[in-house]
Amino acid sequence: MSNMASEYPPEDVLNILIASDIHLGYAEKDSIRGGDTYTTFEEILRLAQEQNVDLILLGGDLFHDSKPTPRCIRDCISLIRQYCMGDRPVAVEFLSDQARNFRHCTHPVVNYEDPNFNISMPIFSIHGNHDDPSGYQQISSLDLISTSGLINYFGKWTDLTQVEISPLLMRKGVTRLALYGLSHLKDERLARLFMDYKVKMLRPREEQEDWFNIFVLHQNRADRGPKTFIAEDMLPDFLDLVVWGHEHECRIIPEQNGRHHFFVCQPGSSVATSLCEGEAVMKHVAILSIHKRKFQVKPIPLKTVRPFVFDSLVLADCTIDFTTEKPSEEVQKYVNEHLETLIQRSAEQISGDTRQPQKPLIRLRVEYMEEKQMFNAVRFGLQYTDRVANPSDIVLFRKQRVTGKVTTEGNIDKEALEALFNMEGRQGILGNRVEMIVEHYFAEVATDKHLQILSIKGLVEAASRFVDKDDRDALACVIDHQVNKTVSHLLSRNLTEDEIAEEIERLRQERLTKAEEEAIDTRKMLAHPSRQNLSGKLKPNSSVIDSDSDVDNEVYLYGTTRGGRGRGQATGTRARGGRGSRSRGVTPSRGRGRSKAAVQTRISDVFSQQQAKGSSRASSSGKRTVVTFDDDSDD
Amino acid sequence: MSNMASEYPPEDVLNILIASDIHLGYAEKDSIRGGDTYTTFEEILRLAQEQNVDLILLGGDLFHDSKPTPRCIRDCISLIRQYCMGDRPVAVEFLSDQARNFRHCTHPVVNYEDPNFNISMPIFSIHGNHDDPSGYQQISSLDLISTSGLINYFGKWTDLTQVEISPLLMRKGVTRLALYGLSHLKDERLARLFMDYKVKMLRPREEQEDWFNIFVLHQNRADRGPKTFIAEDMLPDFLDLVVWGHEHECRIIPEQNGRHHFFVCQPGSSVATSLCEGEAVMKHVAILSIHKRKFQVKPIPLKTVRPFVFDSLVLADCTIDFTTEKPSEEVQKYVNEHLETLIQRSAEQISGDTRQPQKPLIRLRVEYMEEKQMFNAVRFGLQYTDRVANPSDIVLFRKQRVTGKVTTEGNIDKEALEALFNMEGRQGILGNRVEMIVEHYFAEVATDKHLQILSIKGLVEAASRFVDKDDRDALACVIDHQVNKTVSHLLSRNLTEDEIAEEIERLRQERLTKAEEEAIDTRKMLAHPSRQNLSGKLKPNSSVIDSDSDVDNEVYLYGTTRGGRGRGQATGTRARGGRGSRSRGVTPSRGRGRSKAAVQTRISDVFSQQQAKGSSRASSSGKRTVVTFDDDSDD
Repeated sequence: MSNMASEYPPEDVLNILIASDIHLGYAEKDSIRGGDTYTTFEEILRLAQEQNVDLILLGGDLFHDSKPTPRCIRDCISLIRQYCMGDRPVAVEFLSDQARNFRHCTHPVVNYEDPNFNISMPIFSIHGNHDDPSGYQQISSLDLISTSGLINYFGKWTDLTQVEISPLLMRKGVTRLALYGLSHLKDERLARLFMDYKVKMLRPREEQEDWFNIFVLHQNRADRGPKTFIAEDMLPDFLDLVVWGHEHECRIIPEQNGRHHFFVCQPGSSVATSLCEGEAVMKHVAILSIHKRKFQVKPIPLKTVRPFVFDSLVLADCTIDFTTEKPSEEVQKYVNEHLETLIQRSAEQISGDTRQPQKPLIRLRVEYMEEKQMFNAVRFGLQYTDRVANPSDIVLFRKQRVTGKVTTEGNIDKEALEALFNMEGRQGILGNRVEMIVEHYFAEVATDKHLQILSIKGLVEAASRFVDKDDRDALACVIDHQVNKTVSHLLSRNLTEDEIAEEIERLRQERLTKAEEEAIDTRKMLAHPSRQNLSGKLKPNSSVIDSDSDVDNEVYLYGTTRGGRGRGQATGTRARGGRGSRSRGVTPSRGRGRSKAAVQTRISDVFSQQQAKGSSRASSSGKRTVVTFDDDSDD
Repeated sequence: MSNMASEYPPEDVLNILIASDIHLGYAEKDSIRGGDTYTTFEEILRLAQEQNVDLILLGGDLFHDSKPTPRCIRDCISLIRQYCMGDRPVAVEFLSDQARNFRHCTHPVVNYEDPNFNISMPIFSIHGNHDDPSGYQQISSLDLISTSGLINYFGKWTDLTQVEISPLLMRKGVTRLALYGLSHLKDERLARLFMDYKVKMLRPREEQEDWFNIFVLHQNRADRGPKTFIAEDMLPDFLDLVVWGHEHECRIIPEQNGRHHFFVCQPGSSVATSLCEGEAVMKHVAILSIHKRKFQVKPIPLKTVRPFVFDSLVLADCTIDFTTEKPSEEVQKYVNEHLETLIQRSAEQISGDTRQPQKPLIRLRVEYMEEKQMFNAVRFGLQYTDRVANPSDIVLFRKQRVTGKVTTEGNIDKEALEALFNMEGRQGILGNRVEMIVEHYFAEVATDKHLQILSIKGLVEAASRFVDKDDRDALACVIDHQVNKTVSHLLSRNLTEDEIAEEIERLRQERLTKAEEEAIDTRKMLAHPSRQNLSGKLKPNSSVIDSDSDVDNEVYLYGTTRGGRGRGQATGTRARGGRGSRSRGVTPSRGRGRSKAAVQTRISDVFSQQQAKGSSRASSSGKRTVVTFDDDSDD
């Protein structure tokens, strides 16, 4: 293959397997699908072993739950132990200060340098929104695996007033990697921090241009409402490659950002956790190869993923006779026929790998006009029990949208809500997020009679955890916590019974004032100039890449010509060392030498602070050259 | 010190730290006591390191919960990683078939022989009733730690119709250890298996008399009702030492069984999980040293355990004036005074170790006669907030028992129940176990109107989990499970609506028949001759041991003279090899030699089956000699 492996000496090429959103434990109790996530995680580890990569990089959500079951933790540990331990030496030198990179870990060391563990293939991972820290002491599932010495957990960040990312610095031969990681934060919070210039990425001062810079994050990339995504344009220009976790659609072939120089690689999930269109795209991982500032991406289709076919049916457009006595029976017949073609289509996804589960996932979304066109989808699905993995929810009915109508229930003031819904686009400024609805309901509509003791913020958080993570204890947890907090506050005050009521009211007012300040903040953010520049949904510019039909055997190669780029340097007046100016730079010795400690100190001491100003910076720098080679070898 | 260390070459003495019931995570959310279990676990690991033992043996309940919190798992792993990994070589050879000993583990190897882990001090543990397997795939917290390579989890047994225990065989110099482990089973179940001669302990055929035999189990030792404990007498006579987990009272100095030759060492818990009298006994671990068939136990008091003083007050016996207008105030005054002395007494338990939590646990049980003598114990406790670790439950009121009276509530048929309560002793055949009450209520008293779909057995199990383990989801879990099971059974049958009702009734009858069979079984068991021999509560014979006041600096030494013992051998006609007959026995090479695999096979192939007939066997064998040395050194 005309690729890096043949062009450069292998000891200079850093190979990384990139994957994300493995969601171990998803649907684990489903008798059919229960093993899917484990099977594919194992495939990914096996691939990494076969491809002999130097390390594995994960984009978050290794676990589906923030409190995984014992089975889930056990199987994860067991698989990593099986595939990532052994005598193969790791060829990557770790240069940065481990105590700093892993400061949130119980044992802040990179696992393959710990003499007590025999690691053959290190995994590096940030956490996602599913496996984020939770409960007492805010511990995530990744903390468990990291404490076991089996994963290098980085990018955990807890200060919500500012973010400072110190990269993991690694070297293989002449190639140097600066790996920036930021574990999941609420999109709203992180977006605001970006807008307020409060996200800093530290860069090595020495030979700044010689580092290949990867940023791995786990956030919404698609615009799901004003405060609920991170715009690519906000990310700093010095990056070479962004590995974007969280989005489940596989868009693994790097797409160049329209405004900056970096590319974005979105691995997508390795398992479909919702039966929607994006999840029906074929699942891949990628082998990223880096030589100095050039990189190459080789997508590898996963062969153990359960076949999944998604389709939509708009009844209004179908040739069905709705005038019969029971139109739903006509619809059933039509749907039955259509499903047969979908099941047939799913067979195309059978890879031949014996470990692949064979029963397909099928989802047909049916848009109906009137209720009499519907039938009982669960009962209907029973006939497919032997042929489909998800019989009870093959068919999903959706009422055909009639624009301009908003239906609400319960005590909510319908008019006020409707106005909000229509204020800004179809989804309104509330977006489609339940937490927005909860917040709005208690804060604006039903202020008079509710919430003496509980805070809206807590309830919003709980509602969000309930919906996003199926965390059924969330509400009880929050209420317990807030009641206990209030009680112990009151106890500490030694009050009379009258004073208690007063104190409770005072606390409530305090909360409201705080909430009001936050609301002003939010309004400010919505009006931020950088926001106005974003043209709705970001359409990543992928024109430079030949994203041809059969990606399976293709290799994508990218290089950088950095000469004359006008990127500013945040601090210091040092000349940017070109590749010739090694003398004043860091020259770590080869191998896992003893001189490393000294090198580490030097590097961590000379970080300059690069502020991620994103959209406010003009893009005056030179263009990156992108080269795509044909695949002409038998890899 | 006149002990094994001075008498025998150290390379022949096997040293084991023995502890049990560490209950990691107990009261973990308590702001005062939350760290207690971790502090003491760390002390135990540190002690093992300081004492340079060969291995650590735990008697179950390392974890307080079957689903420990992430924090709990993390801290456990982190502590073991900190204290049990490193370059110190392990001097114990592992001889038996690891695939067999650890067959339930994901990686069935003894951790210190796994080349991927650098273990300096192996831990061996069975599970207890608190950390027993649960949930989907029946995985216990110990499985997680074992999969991480940090613990050797043995004695897990799942076949409930018979038990077969294959020992872990180890050697250090001339000393050979056969370690039998049985993780917690329901006492009722295990007791029955013992009575039915269905517990087998495999023994190496070769040189049977040269092995030192330890049995570690986790069951009720105290008689808590007919089916709810394991009588010591049931255990087989060939054992040398029984390590008894589960009982929290520290009785660490080995007590010889009254009937058999073995000694029982009951380490007790390392933390008080209930504020009762037994838990107020000073907590210890022990260093067990073995040379051939001689052993020595050195109790070590734990210095980081929170002080705990328990006392009772019988108001009827106090000089309190109950004729005043508010007798409860007089009682309060009296109690206040008494508590002062208890708090003072707790200071005696301050060890001087800076890691010991200082605020004491105080529990005063007050037996009152009339309700007007009571006061609000929670409010009362507030005045001790700054001085006591458990202010809200310092005082526990108990109504003074009036004999012969039984109070019942709700729908239970009082007369029937009262009769049962009085049938056999004060506790009656129901004992004081909630599951018995639940079972009795649904099975015998309220048969007509209850339980169409749910099984009594499931509810009993759930009630027991709720009470014993504070598992608040147990009931919901069981109901969900049983309803789902019934629904899917019904669905699979394709029934009409009438048939559904019939089928439900048929299922119910099926359950009742099964339950009736089990009840007959239980009656048979209660009438078993071996039971008649048990003289109520077993008072272990401790007269041979000088259980002197200050045990802290004492060492207890025991030896065995086996000549002429008439113990039967279950199978085979081989002569029992004396120590001179090495030639036909197993002669493993020293060190972690390569020849071990062959040795393992030989040993596991030649196990004879030793049936644990317990009480049915006459004790005609020779007496074991027990020697107690004075402690005359400054250890």
